[in-house]
Amino acid sequence: MNPFDLYRSLAKKTDSKILLVVFDGLGGHPTPAMGMSELEAAKTPNLDALVAEGACGLSTPISAGITPGSGPAHLGLFGYEPLDYIIGRGVLSALGIGFDLQPGDVAARINFCTMNSDGLITDRRAGRIATEEGAKRCKILSEIKLPGVEIFVQPEMDYRAAAIFRGAGLCGKLSDSDPQTTGVPPLDVKPLNPPATQIKEAAHTANLVTRFIAEARSRLKGMEPANMVLLRGFDDHLQIPSFQHIFKLKPVCIATYPMYKGLSKLVGMDVLNAGSTLESELETLKANWDKYDFFFFHIKKTDSMGEDGDFNGKVDVLQHGDTLFPEFKKLNPDVIAVTGDHSTPCLLKSHSWHPVPFVVWSPYCRPDNVQRFDERSIAEGSLNGMKHVDIMPLLMANALKFEKFGA
Amino acid sequence: MNPFDLYRSLAKKTDSKILLVVFDGLGGHPTPAMGMSELEAAKTPNLDALVAEGACGLSTPISAGITPGSGPAHLGLFGYEPLDYIIGRGVLSALGIGFDLQPGDVAARINFCTMNSDGLITDRRAGRIATEEGAKRCKILSEIKLPGVEIFVQPEMDYRAAAIFRGAGLCGKLSDSDPQTTGVPPLDVKPLNPPATQIKEAAHTANLVTRFIAEARSRLKGMEPANMVLLRGFDDHLQIPSFQHIFKLKPVCIATYPMYKGLSKLVGMDVLNAGSTLESELETLKANWDKYDFFFFHIKKTDSMGEDGDFNGKVDVLQHGDTLFPEFKKLNPDVIAVTGDHSTPCLLKSHSWHPVPFVVWSPYCRPDNVQRFDERSIAEGSLNGMKHVDIMPLLMANALKFEKFGA
Repeated sequence: MNPFDLYRSLAKKTDSKILLVVFDGLGGHPTPAMGMSELEAAKTPNLDALVAEGACGLSTPISAGITPGSGPAHLGLFGYEPLDYIIGRGVLSALGIGFDLQPGDVAARINFCTMNSDGLITDRRAGRIATEEGAKRCKILSEIKLPGVEIFVQPEMDYRAAAIFRGAGLCGKLSDSDPQTTGVPPLDVKPLNPPATQIKEAAHTANLVTRFIAEARSRLKGMEPANMVLLRGFDDHLQIPSFQHIFKLKPVCIATYPMYKGLSKLVGMDVLNAGSTLESELETLKANWDKYDFFFFHIKKTDSMGEDGDFNGKVDVLQHGDTLFPEFKKLNPDVIAVTGDHSTPCLLKSHSWHPVPFVVWSPYCRPDNVQRFDERSIAEGSLNGMKHVDIMPLLMANALKFEKFGA
Repeated sequence: MNPFDLYRSLAKKTDSKILLVVFDGLGGHPTPAMGMSELEAAKTPNLDALVAEGACGLSTPISAGITPGSGPAHLGLFGYEPLDYIIGRGVLSALGIGFDLQPGDVAARINFCTMNSDGLITDRRAGRIATEEGAKRCKILSEIKLPGVEIFVQPEMDYRAAAIFRGAGLCGKLSDSDPQTTGVPPLDVKPLNPPATQIKEAAHTANLVTRFIAEARSRLKGMEPANMVLLRGFDDHLQIPSFQHIFKLKPVCIATYPMYKGLSKLVGMDVLNAGSTLESELETLKANWDKYDFFFFHIKKTDSMGEDGDFNGKVDVLQHGDTLFPEFKKLNPDVIAVTGDHSTPCLLKSHSWHPVPFVVWSPYCRPDNVQRFDERSIAEGSLNGMKHVDIMPLLMANALKFEKFGA
């Protein structure tokens, strides 16, 4: 039996409320200078109290040794096996810029590049043009009209942008035009292993994209260094069973960054405008507490500080996040869970494969002996060794929202 | 490679003996009043000694957050992935009343119900008639004769009973007649997604069941309030590879309740008459020690006390069970394992999703640091995070009954 069929067959609507707090890039690593990880250095009395009353363990986002991007890490958190639900780069780009993707859309990532008069790529990043230069060109490309399809071209950062094709009968199983090297012309975009039922749609879409690229070349002519586009990571909007369908929840996302809002929308969450600070996120949570039964509360800056290798900065964000918990408690959630999507240790200045602290707190969590919210302490928790995909069913159980399986 | 093919290819007959002691509903939860779980409150010096010499961990019956019924929980204990081997309700009912199910049998659960003169259901439980009233009607329905099929109708409890259809060419993939609501007539029983090879058999069985129901209606006429039957949960006797086949064991069940005897028979165990007390079970074990190499010893009342929310009662059963272990040791088993099928915390008065203490003791178990048989202590054991389906191969290994895999 498939897990989602199982969950759906057991899930029931109740009044209980679940609050899932995600510190992005939560997990850290001791640095040689400190001999302590970011969490070990941080003073987090409220998280420590939660762990003392809760059940905890380190949770693996994907599988052993695998460092996830934000997309798969969050899908895991939300209960989707990240190796079964692959989000294409184009779709992630579109989500990342806050584009309102619809079922049936095909998305791709764009690089603005430099092409010489012989039609050969000389710089795949067009000298890393500034974001506003990219935006100017996006505006030009947005005006391209092709029959039966709407085209959206929106800037990401620097030389990067996203293209979205919307219309009936499209299929995103297409090869890249980006040859990943210079001194050669762009590649032709062709169908790439489309499902048997979509061979015609893929050929049709490849044809449209080819016409779009030709038109782009003509409209960017003379705009050196960014006088051409390379497209890659074509994919269809990921069709995914929703939280409403699987868990019968009414879920909402409270986050500040477009990427996380986009990922939440993908799984069927409502997405609120939560401002740009922890305080505005907290106010948003309070103001909407009565309207939902599942709250995804995202704290971004732990990851940013980890990526920057800013140890004290990450400690500060952790300590700031810790101060929210007395406010959370006042709302009387039935279940509080805290974790990260993945680890981002300052030592590595990047995402990493290390499992992530997880704690669940409810009247029925069965507490273990752990007293402190840090990696070494939580490794001794009763849930240690769990995986991210276990989090959602565990929260459902703690909220008493699952019936018994079998008699 | 499929796990059962693996196990069968490695299993060998030896003289070593395995004793698996299952406290039904073993796992508990601290209560606010006590601050301790049932196991934490119980004095279990013999189990503590076993853990001190053994290897242990909390074991998950099905998967994270899933609360199992007795059927799937025991299948897991016996090494069968519970999500792959689904036992239908009708089969569980038949096992629960101790009916001797045979391969090819089709079983269903019966509700006696009330039908008005227009043929509409007015009470799906016939005013919850007493068990003896149900039994009287079962006797009447048992006399129904249909061509090519034997029909058994046996009382469960109150308004519930089990129907078993035995004959050549039956298929249990049938829809319910129970409409799950009142004010409507019973539904027609029809084939429900039978396998392609059994479409004819399913249609034949649906026809027989329909005739049985018509006959039941006629024979129960005037016996208000229980003047009709509703059938649901049709299923075939679960065909399952046996313990003898997979593990090359000669296994036996020592239990007091029909359900557990039935589940044991399903996996190929001999089932002994073990009386109704722990003492009679122990005597049965001793008397049959020379005849088998695998002993499933089931202790029921921990679960019953948990379901009743009787904390002290559950503590007493645990302490009573603990006193058996010196007697077990005297038999010189090569491997002793202790666990539960699932948790039944008094706090919840029901089965729960919490992982269950597991300990294995043998000369080769590789002991860990845990000294006390309770949930919080065992969460720190070397096997923590295991699943129930891991138990059987682990016991086989500790009994030195598995060859090496590969060269």
